[in-house]
Amino acid sequence: MKKVSEIEDKIIEMIKMKGMKPGDRLENQESMAAYLNVGRGTLREAIKGLIARNILEVRQGAGTYISEGRGVATDPLGFTFINDQKKLAIDLLNVRLTLEPEIAAWAAINASENDIKKLILQKQKVEQLILQEKNYLLEDVSFHKLIAEASDNLVVSTLIPVIHRSVNLSIDLTNNALNKNTIKYHGQLLSAIKRHDAVSARYSMILHLAENLNYLKYKFYGI
Amino acid sequence: MKKVSEIEDKIIEMIKMKGMKPGDRLENQESMAAYLNVGRGTLREAIKGLIARNILEVRQGAGTYISEGRGVATDPLGFTFINDQKKLAIDLLNVRLTLEPEIAAWAAINASENDIKKLILQKQKVEQLILQEKNYLLEDVSFHKLIAEASDNLVVSTLIPVIHRSVNLSIDLTNNALNKNTIKYHGQLLSAIKRHDAVSARYSMILHLAENLNYLKYKFYGI
Repeated sequence: MKKVSEIEDKIIEMIKMKGMKPGDRLENQESMAAYLNVGRGTLREAIKGLIARNILEVRQGAGTYISEGRGVATDPLGFTFINDQKKLAIDLLNVRLTLEPEIAAWAAINASENDIKKLILQKQKVEQLILQEKNYLLEDVSFHKLIAEASDNLVVSTLIPVIHRSVNLSIDLTNNALNKNTIKYHGQLLSAIKRHDAVSARYSMILHLAENLNYLKYKFYGI
Repeated sequence: MKKVSEIEDKIIEMIKMKGMKPGDRLENQESMAAYLNVGRGTLREAIKGLIARNILEVRQGAGTYISEGRGVATDPLGFTFINDQKKLAIDLLNVRLTLEPEIAAWAAINASENDIKKLILQKQKVEQLILQEKNYLLEDVSFHKLIAEASDNLVVSTLIPVIHRSVNLSIDLTNNALNKNTIKYHGQLLSAIKRHDAVSARYSMILHLAENLNYLKYKFYGI
């Protein structure tokens, strides 16, 4: 009898070979079982495993689909188990401050016209929320994700959403002075990316994130 | 009826509240079902979900345990779906070259006596394999993991193993000139961390990884 994990790998191979994309519907289990030469029970277990790995997703009453999550797990870094959420927030910002200035520089070099269009729209969304004094955290995350996608680095376009998603959203970063500067730095970042100026993109990101880190360190530890 | 995902969260809460550690055995399902006030079927589904998330693990015939993986998923970044493995290897090294010099600097600042002892032993293991002309990739990964652990940053100690695990191990980085320099740079890194010299630790890591990146770029693309 074949192992469930082997069948999982075979299904992944099949998805890749057929060039199936997120949102595509998986064929019915009968023909899949025949194609993969396995029993229905084993196939069902393998499909469950792939759902748990966020490679497939079930839509009630409609069947099984390739997941939009493309196999990126929920809480992939296991932050659920870290108790000191203040240290985690600071450590995350330290990692962002190391990675994201370089990502901004790559984005300035590689951004397409389409990337820039998306960034302009996203910058406006964040700005409107700030001016209306609403919570803009999720839209801010999207702005940083779009920069990562524009970088043309396969790793960071997955890694940045994962890092951001892991941030404890209950930690309030908002404060009037920070909000005004967020508008300023997002504007500088976008302008640098637009004119493919990698050096300015890098230091705008450094200023933006270093200010947030500084604010949190002072708020949590008074340093 | 309660959702399975809610029960998963409740089990995680219970694990944290009871201070259970990896390797600890989960109590029997009957008393858990009573404690969580749910049906046995729902509990079983939730436990399956946590196994898939690598938070719990089953040991045949012995019961269910807190996983040593502590919720870090298999292929957490979803690299399974990336077809261009050469670009992935280059992009990963670019990310490592951005992150790891800073991590080395943090390690130089924060490494404990115990961290340094582990690094000395691990450096010797890598060296012996290189001198015996054996494959040293896995032991090299462990050396870099230990530096990440010595950094005292909660995020990178999880992130670096994840990034390394995602590296396609079939890509051969070994070559005589690189191997000799690996011995040299590992020595310089360790020596800098030992004397808490953050600046030297940073540039030793830059030299070490930049040389690997340079080698791969030339090998793959002739640039």
